[in-house]
Amino acid sequence: MAGTNGKVDVPILKDLTIDNITDNVHLINSQSSDARLKYVLERLVSHMHDFARETRLSTTEWMAGIEFLTAVGKKCTDVRQEFILLSDTLGLSLLVDSIDHPKPPASTEGTVLGPYHTHDAHDLSTGSSISADPGGEPLLCLCTVKSTDGKPIQDVKVDIWETDSKGSYDVQYESYTGEKPDGRGIMRSDKEGAFWFKAIVPVPYRIPNDGPVGVMLEKLGRHPWRPSHMHFMFEKQGFDHLITALYLRGDPYETSDAVFGVKESLIVDLGTVNAEQAQKYDVKEGSKLLTYDFVLVTDEETKKLRDEEALKAMKKLGRENMMIINGQLVPDVD
Amino acid sequence: MAGTNGKVDVPILKDLTIDNITDNVHLINSQSSDARLKYVLERLVSHMHDFARETRLSTTEWMAGIEFLTAVGKKCTDVRQEFILLSDTLGLSLLVDSIDHPKPPASTEGTVLGPYHTHDAHDLSTGSSISADPGGEPLLCLCTVKSTDGKPIQDVKVDIWETDSKGSYDVQYESYTGEKPDGRGIMRSDKEGAFWFKAIVPVPYRIPNDGPVGVMLEKLGRHPWRPSHMHFMFEKQGFDHLITALYLRGDPYETSDAVFGVKESLIVDLGTVNAEQAQKYDVKEGSKLLTYDFVLVTDEETKKLRDEEALKAMKKLGRENMMIINGQLVPDVD
Repeated sequence: MAGTNGKVDVPILKDLTIDNITDNVHLINSQSSDARLKYVLERLVSHMHDFARETRLSTTEWMAGIEFLTAVGKKCTDVRQEFILLSDTLGLSLLVDSIDHPKPPASTEGTVLGPYHTHDAHDLSTGSSISADPGGEPLLCLCTVKSTDGKPIQDVKVDIWETDSKGSYDVQYESYTGEKPDGRGIMRSDKEGAFWFKAIVPVPYRIPNDGPVGVMLEKLGRHPWRPSHMHFMFEKQGFDHLITALYLRGDPYETSDAVFGVKESLIVDLGTVNAEQAQKYDVKEGSKLLTYDFVLVTDEETKKLRDEEALKAMKKLGRENMMIINGQLVPDVD
Repeated sequence: MAGTNGKVDVPILKDLTIDNITDNVHLINSQSSDARLKYVLERLVSHMHDFARETRLSTTEWMAGIEFLTAVGKKCTDVRQEFILLSDTLGLSLLVDSIDHPKPPASTEGTVLGPYHTHDAHDLSTGSSISADPGGEPLLCLCTVKSTDGKPIQDVKVDIWETDSKGSYDVQYESYTGEKPDGRGIMRSDKEGAFWFKAIVPVPYRIPNDGPVGVMLEKLGRHPWRPSHMHFMFEKQGFDHLITALYLRGDPYETSDAVFGVKESLIVDLGTVNAEQAQKYDVKEGSKLLTYDFVLVTDEETKKLRDEEALKAMKKLGRENMMIINGQLVPDVD
C-alpha cells in the first residue's frame, strides 16, 4: 500500500486508526535526509501518541492542552520565557542538562539555567560589585576555577547573575531597558584561576507564578519557591560549557526547589570575613563570605563520557542498533 | 528520604539524576487530589523524560524546541491556531478524535476538526447557499442524518464550513471581521432528517505554511496540501457530537492529506443534477451534486464503546489496575 513520492515510499495515508496512525506518521516524516531530525521526530511522535493512547485523552482535555500551550506562548516576551519555566517545573531542563553535560566525579556539577540569563551583563574587573542593591546583605565571593587535574585555568569567562534583595531579577522590573543591568556581571579568572567579586546574599524567591505555569503549579498543589542561589556560567575554549549555581545551606526550600536544581555538591556554608580579608578586599570585617572552587571538564573528556553514557543507556533500553555520528545519536541504518 | 508536606510525603528533591528525576517529579506532582490530573501528568512527564533519555537530547536541541514552541504560540491569533495545526500535522488530532469518538460499524466516521471552525456562522434556512463566491463551481448538497437504527433525526444542528474557490477560509483574509461569514452556515434537519443547501465544489488547499509548522513540514520534506473537502459538525441532545468532513474522490492529495484526515467511508463521488432536481431545488440542470446520509451514534452507545475500548487497550498494555470513573480513565488506588 505504498506509492512513490520522490525520496521515499510514501504510505497511502487513508483510513488511519488508533492502531496504525503512528507508523504512518513515521513513514511520511521519514522523507528528510537528516538522520538525527528523523530519529528525534520519530521518538517525539511515538511518545505523544502513546501518551494519548495510554491516557485515552479526550477531545476536551486535548483542547485544554492546546489552550494551555497557547497561553504559555503568549506569556513569552523578550525578558520572560514561560516555556523554559514549564520545562524547568516538569524536570525536563535538569534532565537535559544532566544528559548533555555529564560530569566526572571530581568536577563541578551543572544545574538548570533558568529563564533569567540575559546577554546584557557588563564585563566587570575583578573585585567589582555585581549588585547595586542597598537593601541586600553584602557578600564577598572568593572563587577559583581549575581543571580536573587541579591546574588553574586562566581567562575563563564567568557570567554571574542573582536576584536583588526582594527576590527579583533586573529584567523582571517593568522599567528594565537592558542598559543598566543589576545583579549581573562578567568576570575573567586570573593566572591562579581566581576571580573575586562583591554581591549580596541570595534570597529565596518565587518563580513567576502569574502565568499559565503558576496556574499549573497551583492545580498540582506545588509551591513556586526556589531556594536562595547564585547562578554561574563558565566559558573557556577547550572546556565544556558549565551552567551551574550555588545554593545556601539551610534554606527553607533547600529540598523542595520548584525546578529541581539543588545538588548537595553545590550547597555552600557561608563564612565570615576576617580582619585580614576585610583589609585585602576592602569590605567590612564580619560580613558574609562565599568561597568556592569550580572545576571544569575538557570538551574531550565530556564528549567521551557523553557518548559512553548514551550507548550504555541504549543498551539498557535494548536499542542495540544505535550509533553516534558527530556527537549525535542516530539509528545505524546499515 | 521523604518529608511530610501537608497532603503527601514529599521527596527530598536534591541530587536528582538522569535515572531518579522522573520518579521524584511524579512524587511532587502527586499532591493534587484530582486523580485524572495526576494520571495525565504522570504519563506526560514520563513520556517527555523518556523522549529526552532515548534521544539523548542536547541542550542545543532542547533550546531549538523551546524556540519552536514559542514561535508556534506567537503565531496564534483569534483566527489562527498554530498549535492545532501542529497537532494535526503530527497525527495527534486524528488520534484523539478516534479515541474519544469511537464509531460502531454502521455510523459515520469522524475526522479532524482543523483550525478553521468559528462561532461566527449564521443560522440559515434549508436551501440557502453557504457560499457567496462567484468563482466557485456550484454544488447542490442533499443530505440526511439518521440514527444507527435507520430512523431520521429531526432538528439536528449541522454546522458546515468550506473554503472559497481559491482555497481560503473567510477568516484567513485580513479584511475578515466576523460579521459576514462566507463558506459557512448552520442548518437544522427536518422531520425526515433531511437538510439541503447550496455550496461550491471544494478545492484542495495548502494548510497555512508561512509559520513554524510550515517550516517543520519543509524540513521533513512534506507537502502542506489537504485534499478537497467540506467540514460538517453535528449536534443533537442524546447523540455523540460528530465532527467530520466529506472528501472528493480522485483528488490529487486523496492519499497524502497533510493532516491525515481522509477515510474511505468519507470519500464521495459527486453526481450531476438532473432535470427534476434542477426544478425542485432551483439550480441548473447538469450542475454538481453531493448526496450523503450521515449516521449519528447515541451518547450512551458511544460511552459504552469508549469505555470498552479504553479497558481493552489498558489490558493490552498490561495495565490491569485501571478503572473508569465518570468516563475518565484513572488508576485504581484501592
